[in-house]
Amino acid sequence: MTINLKEKERLDELQRNGYKIIQNPEKFCFGMDAVLLSGFARAGEGDRVLDLGTGTGIIPILMEAKTRAAHLTGLEIQEESADMAMRSVALNNLQDKIVIVQGDLKEAGTLFGAASFDVVTCNPPYMTSNHGLQNPGEPKAIARHEILCTLEDVVSQAAGLLKPGGNFFMVHRPFRLAEIMVLLHEYKLEPKRMQLVYPYVDKEPNMVLIEANRGGRPRITVEKPLIVYKEPGVYMPEIYDIYGY
Amino acid sequence: MTINLKEKERLDELQRNGYKIIQNPEKFCFGMDAVLLSGFARAGEGDRVLDLGTGTGIIPILMEAKTRAAHLTGLEIQEESADMAMRSVALNNLQDKIVIVQGDLKEAGTLFGAASFDVVTCNPPYMTSNHGLQNPGEPKAIARHEILCTLEDVVSQAAGLLKPGGNFFMVHRPFRLAEIMVLLHEYKLEPKRMQLVYPYVDKEPNMVLIEANRGGRPRITVEKPLIVYKEPGVYMPEIYDIYGY
Repeated sequence: MTINLKEKERLDELQRNGYKIIQNPEKFCFGMDAVLLSGFARAGEGDRVLDLGTGTGIIPILMEAKTRAAHLTGLEIQEESADMAMRSVALNNLQDKIVIVQGDLKEAGTLFGAASFDVVTCNPPYMTSNHGLQNPGEPKAIARHEILCTLEDVVSQAAGLLKPGGNFFMVHRPFRLAEIMVLLHEYKLEPKRMQLVYPYVDKEPNMVLIEANRGGRPRITVEKPLIVYKEPGVYMPEIYDIYGY
Repeated sequence: MTINLKEKERLDELQRNGYKIIQNPEKFCFGMDAVLLSGFARAGEGDRVLDLGTGTGIIPILMEAKTRAAHLTGLEIQEESADMAMRSVALNNLQDKIVIVQGDLKEAGTLFGAASFDVVTCNPPYMTSNHGLQNPGEPKAIARHEILCTLEDVVSQAAGLLKPGGNFFMVHRPFRLAEIMVLLHEYKLEPKRMQLVYPYVDKEPNMVLIEANRGGRPRITVEKPLIVYKEPGVYMPEIYDIYGY
């Protein structure tokens, strides 16, 4: 098929099923967090999956490759990102499996209806403070800072959108871990599984992966540490596995 | 001085200041959790410190050796344990620094008065279920299961006993992490620092160390992993440091 790239866009290989993704490095490119989330998240055969704030669609595309989910939806507020995501879906011939919807995460419950998904994923903005941001309308700022949605928006929407017993998967920064646990519990998404991502074995973690279950009972499994680098420039074997190399 | 050991009691070296502790292996001996908690906890010069459920007094004795706290109190409900703790305090000539009080943790607020400590420590029972316990009155059962106090008793008492800005330090099992975060937040003890203890670098953690601040603002530091064993029978260097070898 003809690949329809706009100015400054590029095409990246995803190491999964030959899938590719369109990105614009001047706007925002997916990071390791999205890849690790798609490695951590689980979807059963026939599940309906929603990704909140999908950006260029990296998570639904990787989840399609890795799971037997029946259908995946990516919700993205920014027109340009949603457009890239739609073209990536078409490029990979995934129109029957993935739909990209342009819309506001804060209205996701109304858009899709209550209890309409088995799985919800999210790689939300991590930073609360927008202080000092020069261009708060820029895609990078929107992806990193809580400009268009807060953690509570994400959690409350996920809680409403999930069927009872459905699972929510999120990647976030460890410094917000207590807030995350409290909010999940408040919205009856009980934290059930967690993994900390440490850049090196002797360094503080810089990411946390969380699974919460709608209506679950309190008891969480904390997994073995996920350590990224063996030495500078060399990943640990597990990271190569998650990336699909 | 004459060492006054009762039947079946033994004297163990603590590798700190020449301190020793009296224990009865048929009742309960302190574990690595108490040692790691005393390594994780901090007390400033002149602080007043309370240990809830002190058992044989291991945590106040180690904290006396490691910090410049002015005074330490250990509260223990079991007469026999409190008696061993008192004799260990005397044996180490620490009567001016440490007092052991026999009493119920659930009444600690009344016993000592509100906002009377700078630091509270606790190595509580980890297990909620008392199901199938043959001897729920045995010291080992009381130390391990929530027979005489619950996690909420511990957290609520600590919150009331701490001065505003004071710090609470606890060791617990990771499977209760979400509950711990939620309860701490509910009682306005904001989780501020956490470390997961992994037996091996490729295994699930089996302990979590938590610091919470009375009236603190949400933002937690998750520390580098604390890994116990390099190989079976050989500790990682950090563990030898904490033990004082």
